[in-house]
Amino acid sequence: MGKTYSQLIVGEKAHFEKTIAESDVYMFAGITGDFNWAHINEEKAKTTKFGGRIAHGMLVSSFISTTIGMELPGPGTIYLSQSVNFKAPVRIGDTIKAEVEVLEKLEKGRVRLKTICYNQRNEIVIEGEAVVLAPKDI
Amino acid sequence: MGKTYSQLIVGEKAHFEKTIAESDVYMFAGITGDFNWAHINEEKAKTTKFGGRIAHGMLVSSFISTTIGMELPGPGTIYLSQSVNFKAPVRIGDTIKAEVEVLEKLEKGRVRLKTICYNQRNEIVIEGEAVVLAPKDI
Amino acid sequence: MGKTYSQLIVGEKAHFEKTIAESDVYMFAGITGDFNWAHINEEKAKTTKFGGRIAHGMLVSSFISTTIGMELPGPGTIYLSQSVNFKAPVRIGDTIKAEVEVLEKLEKGRVRLKTICYNQRNEIVIEGEAVVLAPKDI
Amino acid sequence: MGKTYSQLIVGEKAHFEKTIAESDVYMFAGITGDFNWAHINEEKAKTTKFGGRIAHGMLVSSFISTTIGMELPGPGTIYLSQSVNFKAPVRIGDTIKAEVEVLEKLEKGRVRLKTICYNQRNEIVIEGEAVVLAPKDI
Repeated sequence: MGKTYSQLIVGEKAHFEKTIAESDVYMFAGITGDFNWAHINEEKAKTTKFGGRIAHGMLVSSFISTTIGMELPGPGTIYLSQSVNFKAPVRIGDTIKAEVEVLEKLEKGRVRLKTICYNQRNEIVIEGEAVVLAPKDI
Repeated sequence: MGKTYSQLIVGEKAHFEKTIAESDVYMFAGITGDFNWAHINEEKAKTTKFGGRIAHGMLVSSFISTTIGMELPGPGTIYLSQSVNFKAPVRIGDTIKAEVEVLEKLEKGRVRLKTICYNQRNEIVIEGEAVVLAPKDI
Repeated sequence: MGKTYSQLIVGEKAHFEKTIAESDVYMFAGITGDFNWAHINEEKAKTTKFGGRIAHGMLVSSFISTTIGMELPGPGTIYLSQSVNFKAPVRIGDTIKAEVEVLEKLEKGRVRLKTICYNQRNEIVIEGEAVVLAPKDI
Repeated sequence: MGKTYSQLIVGEKAHFEKTIAESDVYMFAGITGDFNWAHINEEKAKTTKFGGRIAHGMLVSSFISTTIGMELPGPGTIYLSQSVNFKAPVRIGDTIKAEVEVLEKLEKGRVRLKTICYNQRNEIVIEGEAVVLAPKDI
């Protein structure tokens, strides 16, 4: 089980890190049906300002969910909401760090989290916030 | 290419629909690293109020991105932001309809969209909004 | 980073748990090339004493490696050896718990681990031992 | 069906060979939940003595199982035990040859096998032994 409401400390952080493989983008397309050429057509994608295929924004955003569900607060957490602002493209081969920070402990067991994804150059690629219901104290 | 800013009409809708398979949930866990027991441990999950394994909220949310990227506005759209509120669990075997509606045409080519996911009983499982940059008029 | 040699305590345990999906068995076949009919041919497999398709022994064994690499000792561990005895078949839909226990702290930073996989009826399906090089104390 | 106990000859060999793709390592992580950074984080992995992401030892070991289940003795074989010693890292892009050799015919239909994995430079990356129950003579 993850950290309970009373165990969580404002300012506390956790993260998940992964290099985005071509297979991640292709399997994500296969699961979601998002076959937009920006993700799976290299010939077309290399003519854009991004210079090649980019990862789906929601694939990268999902690493936030991983950090929340696995680390902070962790197993037992109920996800209530998430906002994401896509700030920069993520290319195949980029290494993404999704970081979650406890911003505020709200009433009724709810917790507000700052959720940011960085690439390997420490640039913010996604930023937003989540509200979760932390695992209950027993 | 998708619809350009000037082609989009407020109130216009599009959707994507898919039945969530066990393999979708498992492959999504496999891509994102979210192996929270709620998604991949049937024995433990069946003891919860959900009665079994549930899909990752971000997996279901990704169908919104599919609708935006493939249909409305479609290819060429740049995703700026997304908010999602998780209203009800999605079980393996549920059929999800992600619906996108043009809410408002903002300045500088940006468009505000209402984004809702329904299950097969027409219950809202996710609701939120997106802002995108529509494909440019030539 | 995982636990270092000096932090590890004899008798200490960790585990990883997952329900085996049909897609796990099929993707494992796809990665390894083990298309033995016992794993991927239901018609033939249901005529055997197992009554249906079974998971690859090495797929189930890999959950031991997950527990070692992710939990005990965890990231930074170097895997030196593993022995596995296959005691009972694992069917699609079974929930497997791979448990690792510190048995002995050997010389030169090496640690001997007891490694057992149980199914949802608490039957041993795999048992064996591993030797690893624990993460170094700094 | 594979070779029966009486058909097997001591010294007989078979093998399976495959180049390890990035997608193999990523899908194996996805099935097993082993997201240790050594396998999926290139930025961190390139700072180690291995110089980059390495394949999971159990993924490479599984090629032994493929050779046993598909070739020697082949379909109908029951896998009783396997030991593996990890001798050298396997990188993405390495081509692995898993070789199985009949070492000894034991009593009650059991057969002892030598099981070795080589890379493309003919270096041993894994060595060990297996005991299997060969398909029955009719």
